[in-house]
Amino acid sequence: MTDKTKAHYAERANRELADNLEQSDLSLRQQLTVAARMMALEGHDAGVAGQITAKADRPGTYWTLRLGRGFDEATPDQFLLVDDDLKTLEGEGHPNPATRFHMWVYRARPDLNAIFHAHPPYISALSTLQTPLIVAHMDQTPFMEDCAFLAEWPGLPIADDEGRIISEALGDKMSIILAHHGYLTSGRTVAEASFLSVYLERAARMQMRAAAVGAIKPVDTDLALESRNFLKSPLVVDTTFAYFTRKVVNRFGVDVLSEG
Amino acid sequence: MTDKTKAHYAERANRELADNLEQSDLSLRQQLTVAARMMALEGHDAGVAGQITAKADRPGTYWTLRLGRGFDEATPDQFLLVDDDLKTLEGEGHPNPATRFHMWVYRARPDLNAIFHAHPPYISALSTLQTPLIVAHMDQTPFMEDCAFLAEWPGLPIADDEGRIISEALGDKMSIILAHHGYLTSGRTVAEASFLSVYLERAARMQMRAAAVGAIKPVDTDLALESRNFLKSPLVVDTTFAYFTRKVVNRFGVDVLSEG
Amino acid sequence: MTDKTKAHYAERANRELADNLEQSDLSLRQQLTVAARMMALEGHDAGVAGQITAKADRPGTYWTLRLGRGFDEATPDQFLLVDDDLKTLEGEGHPNPATRFHMWVYRARPDLNAIFHAHPPYISALSTLQTPLIVAHMDQTPFMEDCAFLAEWPGLPIADDEGRIISEALGDKMSIILAHHGYLTSGRTVAEASFLSVYLERAARMQMRAAAVGAIKPVDTDLALESRNFLKSPLVVDTTFAYFTRKVVNRFGVDVLSEG
Amino acid sequence: MTDKTKAHYAERANRELADNLEQSDLSLRQQLTVAARMMALEGHDAGVAGQITAKADRPGTYWTLRLGRGFDEATPDQFLLVDDDLKTLEGEGHPNPATRFHMWVYRARPDLNAIFHAHPPYISALSTLQTPLIVAHMDQTPFMEDCAFLAEWPGLPIADDEGRIISEALGDKMSIILAHHGYLTSGRTVAEASFLSVYLERAARMQMRAAAVGAIKPVDTDLALESRNFLKSPLVVDTTFAYFTRKVVNRFGVDVLSEG
Repeated sequence: MTDKTKAHYAERANRELADNLEQSDLSLRQQLTVAARMMALEGHDAGVAGQITAKADRPGTYWTLRLGRGFDEATPDQFLLVDDDLKTLEGEGHPNPATRFHMWVYRARPDLNAIFHAHPPYISALSTLQTPLIVAHMDQTPFMEDCAFLAEWPGLPIADDEGRIISEALGDKMSIILAHHGYLTSGRTVAEASFLSVYLERAARMQMRAAAVGAIKPVDTDLALESRNFLKSPLVVDTTFAYFTRKVVNRFGVDVLSEG
Repeated sequence: MTDKTKAHYAERANRELADNLEQSDLSLRQQLTVAARMMALEGHDAGVAGQITAKADRPGTYWTLRLGRGFDEATPDQFLLVDDDLKTLEGEGHPNPATRFHMWVYRARPDLNAIFHAHPPYISALSTLQTPLIVAHMDQTPFMEDCAFLAEWPGLPIADDEGRIISEALGDKMSIILAHHGYLTSGRTVAEASFLSVYLERAARMQMRAAAVGAIKPVDTDLALESRNFLKSPLVVDTTFAYFTRKVVNRFGVDVLSEG
Repeated sequence: MTDKTKAHYAERANRELADNLEQSDLSLRQQLTVAARMMALEGHDAGVAGQITAKADRPGTYWTLRLGRGFDEATPDQFLLVDDDLKTLEGEGHPNPATRFHMWVYRARPDLNAIFHAHPPYISALSTLQTPLIVAHMDQTPFMEDCAFLAEWPGLPIADDEGRIISEALGDKMSIILAHHGYLTSGRTVAEASFLSVYLERAARMQMRAAAVGAIKPVDTDLALESRNFLKSPLVVDTTFAYFTRKVVNRFGVDVLSEG
Repeated sequence: MTDKTKAHYAERANRELADNLEQSDLSLRQQLTVAARMMALEGHDAGVAGQITAKADRPGTYWTLRLGRGFDEATPDQFLLVDDDLKTLEGEGHPNPATRFHMWVYRARPDLNAIFHAHPPYISALSTLQTPLIVAHMDQTPFMEDCAFLAEWPGLPIADDEGRIISEALGDKMSIILAHHGYLTSGRTVAEASFLSVYLERAARMQMRAAAVGAIKPVDTDLALESRNFLKSPLVVDTTFAYFTRKVVNRFGVDVLSEG
């Protein structure tokens, strides 16, 4: 063993991650199914609360889970193709009316291709304290300087006001904690939004348990940013999403992804 | 996209919810089976503690789970038809003697058709602090100005005193936290009482976790009432109960609803 | 409905409980299997920690689970017959050496026929605070004036000193919290010790969650004693144990009770 | 019953443990599979975070789980043979680049044959408070004077600096809490590192729950050391690991250990 620089090892890590990654070619609806089922496994599930969307191939159209279906019920054929007024273009049923604010975010942020929103237990509890996320652990660093906070609750998010307020509060970040409400994560890919949704609820769980005991000690900003950039790199995100995919298939059976 | 009023979107949401809802025609005992199994899935289950009742078709008669059966054991044929003195009219076995206070509530509140009572973990923990529920999250708004609080424990609820005390404390609300004891939710339908039972324990869980960390910030009353009225509308309640029904069937098998 | 006295309803409740109870005729080892599996389902399980014993028919002999078997592995044939020096009389293997203190308790308390000991998560956490159980909820009343507290940890409980100390601390109570260690529950029957083991851990869970938030308000002593006497009556205990038995059979299959 | 000394009983306990233990002859990769699956069952699992290694027969070579595989996916053939520069010698894929710091620990501590690292929920939460473990319960005594604490987070652990820092902080202990990061446990055997990994997370869970309520009372040092020496003896460790092995086989099926 000889000492090498961190840059050397980071470059090698990226090369090996790329080499190791088994590329999958899931359709968008299959990816959304994996993401929704992971949210269910992680406890984000709550009947009519929460929505998950991704931009479809045709501009101005989106895939979203049918209204009333739980994340634990997601299969590719439960996703509807809708336009930006939430009219159903393909599939049976309607989208969740609360999906409207996603459209505002997509309009404000052309870089985003997927948006997830839910009210999981720990983010919800944190959100009643009207305090933002603290980055105090390596696994929380994906949110370093990248998780906004909306301190006011604009009320039931079914109309346009909420869309404007939430998209402004998000700004150029990838995630946001919505006080009295829940979270939004986004991504250039479904994999990225999914990765952030799983880790954001875990980050809130860690914070709530620690804050009940004493003063949380934040990590150094520069180290956190370096860690964030590594953990949020497409290679780590895709490697993690490949793991999520196998987990969902192992748990629910491969038929869950069938597009039959 | 053009900006529309919230009233416009609320009206459209209701129309689409109605359109989307797959009407089921479960019998009362099947509905009670779904509700009891959901209580088990949500951790409300505790052997001889807790009861669930619904008014049967014939005036002065009620369906209730047989004494000693856990919510996790509910099937349609485990429900007994009883009169308002808790004498068994149909089915084998006796009702839980603690069901007596339900009769007082039904007498005081002719608008109610279903009453649920249990001692789930977080409501129980909250109840030992003798403090009421705080509405600080959208998912807690169904209880805004609609969850009473009984600060004194009248003792083992098997006689008439407890019935009088609890029905007076409930007043015209739909739910109540009973200090040192548990909760009661009610409904014009089994679906409504079930919806409230699931969300009340989750509301208490959120409150207990947040209150261990710091001062909970309540939400604005007017926004909470608007949200409550939407979330407690029959369409949202029935959409959610349809989800509960599928969840129970997916988890326990369709035979669990058999009236064989 | 006419108002009747609480005594009237209590008498009727007892009559109906008796009438409703399906008597089972499980052998002692089958009862211990149910009790051990319930401890596993409730999270009391921890490899070599914890023991469960019951007096066998022949005086001075006891059934106990084989050393190294988890509560989740209990079957009737995993129980050994041992003498009061923990020599194996029937079955293969040895008892847990820490079972020795049970023998001291049996000697001091000829009324007891079963003793359970484990280190479940919430009792263990409570025990590190060196504070006793507080009775602040109906479901905690079985422990009203009936749960002792040993504030000092005498060290690894494999010898005689610990037996003397624990049996003295227990006194004439049915249960005890052992600081830095765990709990002991006992019973005139296996059903009673099992009932208390399940409810004691749940009582500690409730207390730990509430105490993290604020000051727990104890219940009135007289009401708690009345509730305790009802809940710990053989009829309620046996009704609950019959429920535990069905739960274990439903979860693990009926073969788990086979005496092959 | 006659009083005997603790030394007498300890000697007898060891003899009976030895007599009782069913020796297994699992290969190293099978042992690592059991250990990884136990970590998954205990909630240590997190995609690309965490690594588990053991010295292979040939000096300077190690078994480690393939990058991107969760602990819940471990099977013998998912373990790679790597050299001390983390080059793959046998098997398909790459090791986790963060495994590098294990090599530093092996170099500094020739007595160690296995090293586990993960970020489970309670140790992670504790680690954000930058406070060490407190030994306040018998089940925490395996860590008495044997769990180091690294208060600073050196950043993403993929290079050599982190290896130096962590191996220095570990010193001659068997375990360490890494602030803002997670834990490391080690062992002369895979069984020992596995035993410590399971009990360290449980120890942190106990501490976090108790510390949220009040001041934890540590146990007496001498009693804790006596208990530690008993609980960490090879006989207790191997008895516990035999239990873990049966648990993994019962839960995932015996094929999980197949070396195909």
